[in-house]
Amino acid sequence: MMSLRVGVIGTGAIGRDHIRRLTSVVAGVEIVAVADADPELARRVAGEAGARVLPGDRLIGEPDVDAVLVCSWGATHADYVLAAIAAGKPVFCEKPLATTPDAALAIVDAEARRGKRLVQVGYMRRYDDAYRALKRELDGGVIGAPLMMHCAHRNASVPAFYRPDDMITDTAVHEIDMLRWLFGAEIVAVRVLRPRTGGHTGDLPEPMLLVLELDGGVLADVEISVNARYGYDIRGEILGESGTAALGEPGVVAVRSAGRLAVPIAGDWRERFGPAYDAELRDWAGTVRAGQPPGGPSCWDGYAATSVSAAALSSLRTGERVVVSLGDQPELYRRE
Amino acid sequence: MMSLRVGVIGTGAIGRDHIRRLTSVVAGVEIVAVADADPELARRVAGEAGARVLPGDRLIGEPDVDAVLVCSWGATHADYVLAAIAAGKPVFCEKPLATTPDAALAIVDAEARRGKRLVQVGYMRRYDDAYRALKRELDGGVIGAPLMMHCAHRNASVPAFYRPDDMITDTAVHEIDMLRWLFGAEIVAVRVLRPRTGGHTGDLPEPMLLVLELDGGVLADVEISVNARYGYDIRGEILGESGTAALGEPGVVAVRSAGRLAVPIAGDWRERFGPAYDAELRDWAGTVRAGQPPGGPSCWDGYAATSVSAAALSSLRTGERVVVSLGDQPELYRRE
Amino acid sequence: MMSLRVGVIGTGAIGRDHIRRLTSVVAGVEIVAVADADPELARRVAGEAGARVLPGDRLIGEPDVDAVLVCSWGATHADYVLAAIAAGKPVFCEKPLATTPDAALAIVDAEARRGKRLVQVGYMRRYDDAYRALKRELDGGVIGAPLMMHCAHRNASVPAFYRPDDMITDTAVHEIDMLRWLFGAEIVAVRVLRPRTGGHTGDLPEPMLLVLELDGGVLADVEISVNARYGYDIRGEILGESGTAALGEPGVVAVRSAGRLAVPIAGDWRERFGPAYDAELRDWAGTVRAGQPPGGPSCWDGYAATSVSAAALSSLRTGERVVVSLGDQPELYRRE
Amino acid sequence: MMSLRVGVIGTGAIGRDHIRRLTSVVAGVEIVAVADADPELARRVAGEAGARVLPGDRLIGEPDVDAVLVCSWGATHADYVLAAIAAGKPVFCEKPLATTPDAALAIVDAEARRGKRLVQVGYMRRYDDAYRALKRELDGGVIGAPLMMHCAHRNASVPAFYRPDDMITDTAVHEIDMLRWLFGAEIVAVRVLRPRTGGHTGDLPEPMLLVLELDGGVLADVEISVNARYGYDIRGEILGESGTAALGEPGVVAVRSAGRLAVPIAGDWRERFGPAYDAELRDWAGTVRAGQPPGGPSCWDGYAATSVSAAALSSLRTGERVVVSLGDQPELYRRE
Repeated sequence: MMSLRVGVIGTGAIGRDHIRRLTSVVAGVEIVAVADADPELARRVAGEAGARVLPGDRLIGEPDVDAVLVCSWGATHADYVLAAIAAGKPVFCEKPLATTPDAALAIVDAEARRGKRLVQVGYMRRYDDAYRALKRELDGGVIGAPLMMHCAHRNASVPAFYRPDDMITDTAVHEIDMLRWLFGAEIVAVRVLRPRTGGHTGDLPEPMLLVLELDGGVLADVEISVNARYGYDIRGEILGESGTAALGEPGVVAVRSAGRLAVPIAGDWRERFGPAYDAELRDWAGTVRAGQPPGGPSCWDGYAATSVSAAALSSLRTGERVVVSLGDQPELYRRE
Repeated sequence: MMSLRVGVIGTGAIGRDHIRRLTSVVAGVEIVAVADADPELARRVAGEAGARVLPGDRLIGEPDVDAVLVCSWGATHADYVLAAIAAGKPVFCEKPLATTPDAALAIVDAEARRGKRLVQVGYMRRYDDAYRALKRELDGGVIGAPLMMHCAHRNASVPAFYRPDDMITDTAVHEIDMLRWLFGAEIVAVRVLRPRTGGHTGDLPEPMLLVLELDGGVLADVEISVNARYGYDIRGEILGESGTAALGEPGVVAVRSAGRLAVPIAGDWRERFGPAYDAELRDWAGTVRAGQPPGGPSCWDGYAATSVSAAALSSLRTGERVVVSLGDQPELYRRE
Repeated sequence: MMSLRVGVIGTGAIGRDHIRRLTSVVAGVEIVAVADADPELARRVAGEAGARVLPGDRLIGEPDVDAVLVCSWGATHADYVLAAIAAGKPVFCEKPLATTPDAALAIVDAEARRGKRLVQVGYMRRYDDAYRALKRELDGGVIGAPLMMHCAHRNASVPAFYRPDDMITDTAVHEIDMLRWLFGAEIVAVRVLRPRTGGHTGDLPEPMLLVLELDGGVLADVEISVNARYGYDIRGEILGESGTAALGEPGVVAVRSAGRLAVPIAGDWRERFGPAYDAELRDWAGTVRAGQPPGGPSCWDGYAATSVSAAALSSLRTGERVVVSLGDQPELYRRE
Repeated sequence: MMSLRVGVIGTGAIGRDHIRRLTSVVAGVEIVAVADADPELARRVAGEAGARVLPGDRLIGEPDVDAVLVCSWGATHADYVLAAIAAGKPVFCEKPLATTPDAALAIVDAEARRGKRLVQVGYMRRYDDAYRALKRELDGGVIGAPLMMHCAHRNASVPAFYRPDDMITDTAVHEIDMLRWLFGAEIVAVRVLRPRTGGHTGDLPEPMLLVLELDGGVLADVEISVNARYGYDIRGEILGESGTAALGEPGVVAVRSAGRLAVPIAGDWRERFGPAYDAELRDWAGTVRAGQPPGGPSCWDGYAATSVSAAALSSLRTGERVVVSLGDQPELYRRE
């Protein structure tokens, strides 16, 4: 089978990480072109990958670019994705799909008009073994119909450039997409509650508790901490009518010493979700090579995540419950 | 050392259970008198214990009754406790201390006027090994200053006479007392949130999520489920500035069979908190025999629990955040 | 009900610990007399307990001594137990029942001739919640017929007076009794294997691996470590035809900090088996007060444990497999 | 970088599984030729992979075959590996390297004479995350110098063609290689012990307990069960001078229902060790493409595993302890 020739827009940390995956743990992919706002960086990455450097918008149109990866700054995503749709090319867009609900909805409309699914958004948790096992248990029915979910998302720390709003748009957004996917239901309202902050949080509104209401009545509470210090920790437990299902504890090794039995906790998201990123890109490349629609999060999912994020930002400022309204879902995104 | 001669008011399930403890796992206690609204039941229990039957108010005054156990219906507690204080006798009162904040405050005032601690209220979690270990870890500082706590209280089922308000006054009240004790801080506001209900809950507002704000800024969310069906499950995790501490999972035995590794979950509160009830009564009897003030929850604790319960009931009806205001704490209850 | 009046022979560490239990966590017991080789110690303990001091052999014969606790040095146990049998008094004997198989067999014969069970031997694991749960799972059949068992017994450290042979007669002997009880079968052969020793073991043959063959073909391997340093750790897993059952991990609290999820491990046997000692003496006192035969390990169990220990000591010296032969079990010890 | 062109000898289950890995989860590999004793099967597999069919010995000599994978029946491995060494081509050989110690030693000699490492043997546990974490903890020193190791290898079931000796040569051999690698020491003696067999084991000597002595004095006991029925379960705990380190429990999801907290157990080796097989072939292909010596188990490792297996088979027949003697290790295999 021919290799899939991919062009990558954005060669920052996540872009380079994806290039590494596509050339070492995903079979059958070739990087043929890269683009970045920093031409020096772009040249260096292109050299290592054996690719050429092009401006992002030209890259999309190149005949030997079969598919596009958008990993640039979030604010630029929407335009690149629209261009890829216009060119009829499959595109994998890192989250967020767009930074405003309107911009995301414009992409939904464009793809729906074209009548074919071309876009996958990079919410990788849907490819995580633990979340998949959790969904299997939920769908399998052993715990009965779901009533509540308790979640926690904890980063050991965040980089200096991390901004207060990122707690929602960059961090909580993964929980938002996960909840929609897990329960197969939209989030209809959100409220952000805040305890005291710790001494190490600077101006971050940290930790916070999101209370999310899903269509159908499931209630989810989600702790977001980004200075948890002890490690990277992702937790989730679904309460059903007759039982619960929770993400397991990892623990590849258990050490008994000095009066304690201890298992290691992941240090960061790369360690925790590395295999999910691998699986995500492997699945995406596989569907593209096979001429199938993408199996991961769609434009609609990206639009919904951005809309709930916007509502959460609003609640963060006011402390009030904010209702989310998405409008009608185009036929294209309905699962049979 | 002389035996402690105890009179027991109320010989229902919990009363008989306490009598069994006092005569089998607590050394140095003798049951000399019992009272109950059901004279037939009282006679039977008295016969087994080698005690005599008396009306509750007369029992308190008997010269050979050194101390009193109040296990009657909740609405009758306050009067018996006031009578015991008036008689200057140590009294162990099952929760609640009183059914209204005003009635509880009247007891606080009576004991404070007498100037001596005579009352212990039956919140037994403070005697549970796991909660004690949790508090030790918190106080030890390894997780840093506390920021949030996530709790769940799940009953497998509740008896037919269990009423909607009992979810707060009978069930959540244990979590309320535990939070105050664990963090050494009063609860200043409460809000009750509700997801959809399960198919087996009848008219119970079940499950519910209490959001409790503590003085100092710790935020606690508490799931209350009383038809969890799978077992009796009590959970709690404190998020601190640099780590978390959680109640461990019991699991006395681990069985691998049919593709699963399984550990048993407690069936009910007797199984989960049996040793805590033992320790509670052993401690109470020990302090009374030694002429010391009781080491467990005080009148003030009982008053605070009843006040927060009242606020939660109000929020359950309105959905709004309700502020709790306790007034000044008498000198008698301040810990040095 | 009248108190049970107990005489205690031996007021060393374990003797005082048992007196504390009998006067604080077991209801209905009174210590009326104590004996010890150290008269000064005996006087002090007697004073605290409100008892009188007597020589051990006289103590057994006192009319107001209803039952006897033998906690003196192991070598003296047999004579005291024989005296108690001769006096027709219930006796609880700390392990070992006797230091040689012949001496233990003489006790079995004496009790069998008397035709009434008077002796309970202090193997307290049979009263441990975890071992009881393990036995319930085994007997319940979910794992099928047993094939093997893997055990480990680890002390953090041992006192200076601990001798090499104690690894078997004092430590491994608990595993030996437990295996016989768990599987309801005698041990028919034993072999002791030894790896390299650690740097902290002095002249102790430590760690060691006992391989025990049970009547019926179950094979058990038992690691004995007495300088494990990290804590006191007792492990056991039964392999059955269709699954396994293992002692659970305790873990009353789970702390996440500095990249690790840690649960505490018991520091010593008092912490791990404290509740089992409580239950053991409560059960013993209860059966004696009720005029029933003791429910715990019998003379025969004590004789079997001493016999397997002797075989293990022999194997420790030679490295060879040693066969154990107990002879016929008297009618008195057969369970219906 | 050019693709690595691989020829695969043996297209049975494991051969096809490896082809799938090399063409889907390992980047940069192309299958150019396949061989199999069953020409029909070879043709079908070749067709799917876009490769040609050749006899095994001719395949090795083809100019466009850069490296060889040997996945044929065990008895044929040695000749193919010798041919690859003679042709100077890198070869990955599924275990065993050879079926007798002599045949394995002949390969060691041939490679040593050639003076260059060309062979990697397929013991994939060295690539498993859990074993790697275990080795890191051991090497990190937190548990002190190793003294013992307790292991268990349990298959839920084995296929009908599985023979009694396979318990050692096919199953226990993974534990044998793992122990040598983990402790960096040769196995110097082995003994096989046997309990009663279960009702479902047919003529298999199952379960069995291997007792292995390592150079330096570490003692390992290894349970081998191949009809464990409940799942595929691999266990290991190292006892060190000051602590222990054990393989963790997987448990991606935890379900509470019907009185139990349950986590899933792997069903078979594919599920448990799938990622290790991926990593093994990725590493092998990577070193070959980079012109480096293989990073995995060497001929010497294969020879040692076969030699210990032969000793274990002998002990299985006699029940006696059998000494293993490997002779001098050629310079080529010494790690600096």
